[in-house]
Amino acid sequence: MKVLVDISIVPLGVGLSLSPYVAECEKIFAAAHLKTALHAYGTNVEGDWDEVFAAIRKCHETLHAMGAPRISTNLRLGTRTDRVQTLEDKVRSVTEKM
Amino acid sequence: MKVLVDISIVPLGVGLSLSPYVAECEKIFAAAHLKTALHAYGTNVEGDWDEVFAAIRKCHETLHAMGAPRISTNLRLGTRTDRVQTLEDKVRSVTEKM
Amino acid sequence: MKVLVDISIVPLGVGLSLSPYVAECEKIFAAAHLKTALHAYGTNVEGDWDEVFAAIRKCHETLHAMGAPRISTNLRLGTRTDRVQTLEDKVRSVTEKM
Amino acid sequence: MKVLVDISIVPLGVGLSLSPYVAECEKIFAAAHLKTALHAYGTNVEGDWDEVFAAIRKCHETLHAMGAPRISTNLRLGTRTDRVQTLEDKVRSVTEKM
Repeated sequence: MKVLVDISIVPLGVGLSLSPYVAECEKIFAAAHLKTALHAYGTNVEGDWDEVFAAIRKCHETLHAMGAPRISTNLRLGTRTDRVQTLEDKVRSVTEKM
Repeated sequence: MKVLVDISIVPLGVGLSLSPYVAECEKIFAAAHLKTALHAYGTNVEGDWDEVFAAIRKCHETLHAMGAPRISTNLRLGTRTDRVQTLEDKVRSVTEKM
Repeated sequence: MKVLVDISIVPLGVGLSLSPYVAECEKIFAAAHLKTALHAYGTNVEGDWDEVFAAIRKCHETLHAMGAPRISTNLRLGTRTDRVQTLEDKVRSVTEKM
Repeated sequence: MKVLVDISIVPLGVGLSLSPYVAECEKIFAAAHLKTALHAYGTNVEGDWDEVFAAIRKCHETLHAMGAPRISTNLRLGTRTDRVQTLEDKVRSVTEKM
């Protein structure tokens, strides 16, 4: 089952600069060969359900290992059976109507 | 790794009454022996990371099988390494300060 | 316009114990006479759109004044024109199908 | 007070194609002179708190007027007092660490 996810990961107890942690997750998604698109409030991820969630789990494990004692993550995720849709499809379907 | 999750699952293309679908997910969580607490805007779930996410995957698969062609889910999830915390702990820590 | 909101507010740069901040927001909602229900991963709030969002703004302002230099909030919010629905209605519609 | 928001708006009861509704909200943000960045799972919005939330309210009102009887929205929002941060700053702070 394919899934489109948007992930916003917030490590707590590490001060105010979260970007080193977000960057580490980006590397994990890249190493897992998942398609991603970074934006100012999270990262779009496209891939097979189990591969995407294995990568998200690895993010949590890695950020804890980097010293974050607590992590709060927000996910939006979508699956559909009517048709195949990519991250690019979703953006294009909106912009062509603007 | 233990995780606390809050899940809000929104099937699309099935009209305006979403409760039969939410109820089906509740049954899946119960069958997986996960601790849950239903509220007006989602369900708290507590359990082992892999068991929780296997149940969430099963929710998506089951709702698609029930006829929902598209599903949009929002998850909040937290892990921590500093201490063990249950759903009840989180509520109590707030209410005792109110 | 009436709105049902679920709010999860995460102050950053204040350590790992967030409950004093969450409790402060609960007091703000209560003082605004909004109907609320606390759960382990947020708070349901029911009320008039402008009153609810004025209270949420006040939460951010108050938590900054308490010393939180950065706040990350997640909101789920719903409006509907087909019928009036309360927080209790939403929970009941699910539980009667379980 | 300045705020950075990420909004994902899901109209219910209008079928599976949500892009006409998302596009309408984009127009509302543009008309309000708010800075935005569209991505595959939402839209980043930067601006003054009251102006941003007035635009979000207008989105809900407009989508109801377009025929959506129910709307479910997810917002991530951040405020900070330690420094000024733009949408571009947030992306750059991550990419320069990758």
